[in-house]
Amino acid sequence: MSKNLLLLSSSREGQTEYLEHALPIIDDFLSKDIKEVLFIPYAGFAMGYDAYEEKVNLPLQTIGKKVVSIHRFDDPVKAVQQADAVAIGGGNTFHLLKELYDNELIDAIRQRVAEGMPYMGWSAGSNVAGLTICTTNDMPIVEPRSFKALALVNFQINPHYTDYQPPNHNGETRAERLFEYVRANPHRYVVGTREGTALQLKDNHLTLVGEKLGLVFRDGEKTRPIKCNTDISWLL
Amino acid sequence: MSKNLLLLSSSREGQTEYLEHALPIIDDFLSKDIKEVLFIPYAGFAMGYDAYEEKVNLPLQTIGKKVVSIHRFDDPVKAVQQADAVAIGGGNTFHLLKELYDNELIDAIRQRVAEGMPYMGWSAGSNVAGLTICTTNDMPIVEPRSFKALALVNFQINPHYTDYQPPNHNGETRAERLFEYVRANPHRYVVGTREGTALQLKDNHLTLVGEKLGLVFRDGEKTRPIKCNTDISWLL
Repeated sequence: MSKNLLLLSSSREGQTEYLEHALPIIDDFLSKDIKEVLFIPYAGFAMGYDAYEEKVNLPLQTIGKKVVSIHRFDDPVKAVQQADAVAIGGGNTFHLLKELYDNELIDAIRQRVAEGMPYMGWSAGSNVAGLTICTTNDMPIVEPRSFKALALVNFQINPHYTDYQPPNHNGETRAERLFEYVRANPHRYVVGTREGTALQLKDNHLTLVGEKLGLVFRDGEKTRPIKCNTDISWLL
Repeated sequence: MSKNLLLLSSSREGQTEYLEHALPIIDDFLSKDIKEVLFIPYAGFAMGYDAYEEKVNLPLQTIGKKVVSIHRFDDPVKAVQQADAVAIGGGNTFHLLKELYDNELIDAIRQRVAEGMPYMGWSAGSNVAGLTICTTNDMPIVEPRSFKALALVNFQINPHYTDYQPPNHNGETRAERLFEYVRANPHRYVVGTREGTALQLKDNHLTLVGEKLGLVFRDGEKTRPIKCNTDISWLL
């Protein structure tokens, strides 16, 4: 089976409502017969899992989809094994990955995705689809068992990619951080996706969906732009 | 012996030159008889350790101090044991902590600091002085053996603290990230220090040096401002 992945950079684009920009993309990605999606809220622990589930259902119901959060199941591994599709929401990537490990979900999700089950994520939920969480933008508020992530694709993802640098602030730019990553990890590719865009893998074709250029970083190479809606399966 | 710590938020303040704002603070912190400081450049691996050492020496020589980088010593543990003072520079906190572990320097530094040896750091070098690196702003480009850091103070440090939020960008504010940290780690204090300020521990008195308010975060409590140049030893 070929994998079905939708990896959104962010839950919002500019001033739009929560998941608003993503609805047509999700509607196109999930086939009509999928009505219920298993939702993994671990990244959003601070708001509470009930509240997070509701927050996601509000927009998704407008396209006839419903999420049920994994915290409602006694056996999370079984919930993944029986799901029609899985969605992992944004929040803190470290907390998300820690909970994925602590609930023994890494192998379970990998296996279902290999069997063709649709996987969608945004922000932290896209980050963990990469090889490791080494290119997250999040604060390491808890320590996961390992930085190794779901590895649903063979590269690193940097969601919320931006060129912006706050005035009068002396931190690194995002590009500088990613250059440090590839310097420390010379054989890895990093794909930076800007807010509003998504990586989509369908029928063995990888594309960037949206309107803003993506970026590919690799040690010793010039940064390559990725155009939207063209095949970038060479990254797989 | 009491500890001697100078934990600078940043190497620069606004548009000033590298370490420029820090020179009078460092000059006041290090006693006149200390001429040579052992420099630990591991956070700045991307620029190369020779270059980093030179970059630090340029400003420090104007106050009669010289740093020698630890990469010039065959035995880094012995270098720490024999140093008059240690300085840890900024860069990537994860790379720094990984190298501190890989070179077996955690215990060596802790022991010398407990004996009274002056320790100074900026940015990543201040971060690792806290209990863990869980409140770093850096990207986790490499995986250290543990998030546990030098624990030279009994709280968490967030250097480069800022209230700024980029326009039209949907990441969390710094305060939101730190609230998530304390939510996940309820008994911990976090001290946010703004660029240009430094935490200083001398004669068993902890103060914030500089001109900008610091902030203390703890789960379930209102954020408390910290005034500069007043005793905040209750945090120890």
